[in-house]
Amino acid sequence: MENKGVLFVVSAPAGCGKDTILNEFFKRTDTAGYAVSATTRAMREGEINGVHYHFLTVEDFKEKIESGEVLEYTEYCGNFYGTLKKSVGDLLSQGKDAVLKIEVEGAMNIRRKFPDACLVFILPPSLEVLEKRLRGRGTETEEKIMERTAQAKTELKFAENYDYIIVNDDLNVAVEDLLGVFRAEKLRKPRRESVLKSIMGEEN
Amino acid sequence: MENKGVLFVVSAPAGCGKDTILNEFFKRTDTAGYAVSATTRAMREGEINGVHYHFLTVEDFKEKIESGEVLEYTEYCGNFYGTLKKSVGDLLSQGKDAVLKIEVEGAMNIRRKFPDACLVFILPPSLEVLEKRLRGRGTETEEKIMERTAQAKTELKFAENYDYIIVNDDLNVAVEDLLGVFRAEKLRKPRRESVLKSIMGEEN
Repeated sequence: MENKGVLFVVSAPAGCGKDTILNEFFKRTDTAGYAVSATTRAMREGEINGVHYHFLTVEDFKEKIESGEVLEYTEYCGNFYGTLKKSVGDLLSQGKDAVLKIEVEGAMNIRRKFPDACLVFILPPSLEVLEKRLRGRGTETEEKIMERTAQAKTELKFAENYDYIIVNDDLNVAVEDLLGVFRAEKLRKPRRESVLKSIMGEEN
Repeated sequence: MENKGVLFVVSAPAGCGKDTILNEFFKRTDTAGYAVSATTRAMREGEINGVHYHFLTVEDFKEKIESGEVLEYTEYCGNFYGTLKKSVGDLLSQGKDAVLKIEVEGAMNIRRKFPDACLVFILPPSLEVLEKRLRGRGTETEEKIMERTAQAKTELKFAENYDYIIVNDDLNVAVEDLLGVFRAEKLRKPRRESVLKSIMGEEN
């Protein structure tokens, strides 16, 4: 009667509060784990190898692609970003849901390779709000803010291909929405065949 | 950006604890209301007209069918059971989700007429457990228990046509499951077109 873990993809344009939502989400659930992505980009201050990303050299990354250890990858701003088979597999084999935090191209790669994956897109209430939030951080140049807003516009077009759309207007609501999505998705009929068989089967 | 209310159908074989789950569910949500069904069967002790059912005479029921006031109806054990257009419409027009508690035939009628409706099926962990629960009530004759278990078997075959399958093993888990389903269903992409348009539109 146990459900197997589900592969969830969570994407969001930069500045949507995706990291804050996911941090809070993981505090409130014990059935899902974070599948750490791999990247060749430089580690930033405060980042921990194996926690925020698996930081790899370009050579290592290419080697893992060659040996089939990378489920999907994209190149973005001159760096590789990808999903290691092991990161996902370890979680799913424990019966946990695996959460991939990847951008839209990566999400589409996952969709193609794993039609069963569930894709969640987190959006700002509006592009104006997004711009305001990016500006509010005080860490971004005006050029960077414009670039990110433009990029968000482009990414929004991929929303069509996602299964769920969460709007981050209020953090707590967004986190509860995400928890609800994880809970409900596993109750959807196409994922309940084995449960149904088990209930029916016991009649014999 | 507001979501419109969704028409939810909740079905379950007798003895699955559907009423207990729904009572608890309505205590924990304020975004959904119960769309009271109409019936021509006799009122039972403890039942209140307009709360548990709209109790109608056969003549009244037929008149409402004629005048188009009945969304769907079935005949069951010699009585009419149906959904009044007004019961559903009143809730949806307030922006609330409407919950219809109807059996499988009625649910299939709703599915045909309202492809947008969301169908939730509540099941016992097994037919043995169902039988045990019915027996445990101490209010049913052995014949009635056998009849209900057989009927549950038949109804189980309709599970295929539902959107979500909830197993009532633990009451609290089942209620949380139902709350999660209501929350998540409204975040599903096909129901988010207007939200997406609103976010996109504000870029102009």
